[in-house]
Amino acid sequence: MSAEGGRVEAIALDGIPEVGVGDDLGRLIGDAIDRTAGPLPLRPDDVVVVTQKIVSKAEGAIVDLTTIEPRREATVFAERWDRDARQIEVVLREARRVVRMDRGVLITETPHGFICANGGVDASNVGPESGSIVTLLPRDPDASARAIRAAIRGRFGTDVPVIVSDSFGRPWRWGITDVAIGVSGLIPIEDLRGREDADGRVMKSTIRASADEIASAAELALGKVDGRPVAVVRGARPLLGEGSIADALMAREFDLFP
Amino acid sequence: MSAEGGRVEAIALDGIPEVGVGDDLGRLIGDAIDRTAGPLPLRPDDVVVVTQKIVSKAEGAIVDLTTIEPRREATVFAERWDRDARQIEVVLREARRVVRMDRGVLITETPHGFICANGGVDASNVGPESGSIVTLLPRDPDASARAIRAAIRGRFGTDVPVIVSDSFGRPWRWGITDVAIGVSGLIPIEDLRGREDADGRVMKSTIRASADEIASAAELALGKVDGRPVAVVRGARPLLGEGSIADALMAREFDLFP
Repeated sequence: MSAEGGRVEAIALDGIPEVGVGDDLGRLIGDAIDRTAGPLPLRPDDVVVVTQKIVSKAEGAIVDLTTIEPRREATVFAERWDRDARQIEVVLREARRVVRMDRGVLITETPHGFICANGGVDASNVGPESGSIVTLLPRDPDASARAIRAAIRGRFGTDVPVIVSDSFGRPWRWGITDVAIGVSGLIPIEDLRGREDADGRVMKSTIRASADEIASAAELALGKVDGRPVAVVRGARPLLGEGSIADALMAREFDLFP
Repeated sequence: MSAEGGRVEAIALDGIPEVGVGDDLGRLIGDAIDRTAGPLPLRPDDVVVVTQKIVSKAEGAIVDLTTIEPRREATVFAERWDRDARQIEVVLREARRVVRMDRGVLITETPHGFICANGGVDASNVGPESGSIVTLLPRDPDASARAIRAAIRGRFGTDVPVIVSDSFGRPWRWGITDVAIGVSGLIPIEDLRGREDADGRVMKSTIRASADEIASAAELALGKVDGRPVAVVRGARPLLGEGSIADALMAREFDLFP
C-alpha cells in the first residue's frame, strides 16, 4: 500500500540494555540505531522518542523507598487506599502543589508544571530485584532531550529532534497515553489557525499537539512489554525549531480544572 | 531501517471526495482503499481510522445555524467572549450537562458521555461555502464504526477494526490530539496489569488507551490539511473483540474533575 506523503512510521529500536545511573544514554541510543539494519540509519524527517524511565535512571533521578520516612498525611492516605506511604511521601516532596488527593489517586503539579498522577513518580519495572526503587521525572527533560540530540548529531551527522516521553492519564477517560515531557529541535504544539497550505486550502483551525501525538505513535511501536524504551518516528514532520515543553503547558489563568 | 516487530505505520488514504448527507461512506472508503496501490490492500493487522466530520456529514448530523434561535444565556456568553451565539445554543441543546462555561470555553458532557469542548460541535471546514453549517457528533459512533467495518469486510473479505476519531483538547495542556469516539472490532483500552509476556517478563503495569493512541498516529499521517479524512494504521495490534467506546469512559464515581 502506498500513498503520496501522508505516511508516518514508528520503529522500536532493539538492543537497549538495562540502563543504570551514570550510563551514557546518547551512546546507548546511538549503538541501537547503528545495530538497526538499513542503508540510511537516520533520516532528516525522523524524530527520536526516548521514554522517561531510562532517562531518569541514567540521570540518577531515582529514590530508594527504604530511605524515606513518610509524614502522617502520607501514612493515613496510604492506609486508607492500600498504597505505599513512602511513595506518597516522595510524590508530596516533589510536588509544587497538590491538585487532587482523593479516592486513592494523587494528582500533583510538578516543578516543571506538569499535572499528572503521582507527579510522575513511578514504581513499575525499574529493574530486576529493585522493588524499593522509584524513578522521579528528569529534573530538566528539555535538557535531557537536548543532550541526546547532540550525541546523535555528533555521531551520525544528522540533526533530528528528540522527545522525552512519559505515560500520563487523562480526566474522564480510562487508560494512559504517551505524551511529551521534554523536547529538543521541535516546537511541541503547532498553531495552524487560519493558515493556508500551498494549494490555498485553509488548514485546520486548531492547535495541534504534534509532540504528544508523536509520543503516542512511538508507544504503539514500543508496545506492551518493557525493554524497548526508544523509537524512531519517521515522516511526522513536526514544526522544527528550538522549542520547549513549557510551550505546551497551559498557564494557570487559562486552566478551568485547577 | 528494520526491527523485528515493533513497527507501526499510519497511511493516509487519498481520494475521498467531499462527503454529503446520505453518501455511502463504506463504499467511498472501499474505493479509496482500492485506489491505493499495493499487492495486498488490507492486512489483518490493519485498523481503519475515520475522522468524525465525514461520518457526521454522511449521517446528516449537521445543523444550519441560520435556523437556530439562541437562548439568552448563549447570547450573553457569545457577546462577552466573541463567539457565535447560535453555535453555543446548539452545544447547550446537545449537552447532557455543562461541565465548564467560562472564559469563552464551553465544555459539556455529550449524550454519549464524552466530556469535550463544544460538545464536539464543530464549525471548521465543513465544506466550501457552508459557513453556517456545523457538524454534531454521530448519534452512535460505535454503530458508525460497525457499519464501515461491515462494508469493508463485505468488499475485501478482511475483517479489520474501525475507529471513528475526533480531535479533543485536554486540561492543562495546549493543543488537540485525536482520540477514539467510536470503535468496532477492538477493545479501546487494554488492562495489562500484572500480565506476563511470552518470555515471562512482566508487562507494563498500566491500562493502555490503545484506541486513542491509534487515533493520534492516524492524525499524524492525515496531517495538517483537510481533505484526507481516513487512514489505515498497520501493526498496532490492539486487543481484538467486540468493544465499545463506553469501555473507555470513566464513570462519575471515579471522576476527580466533575
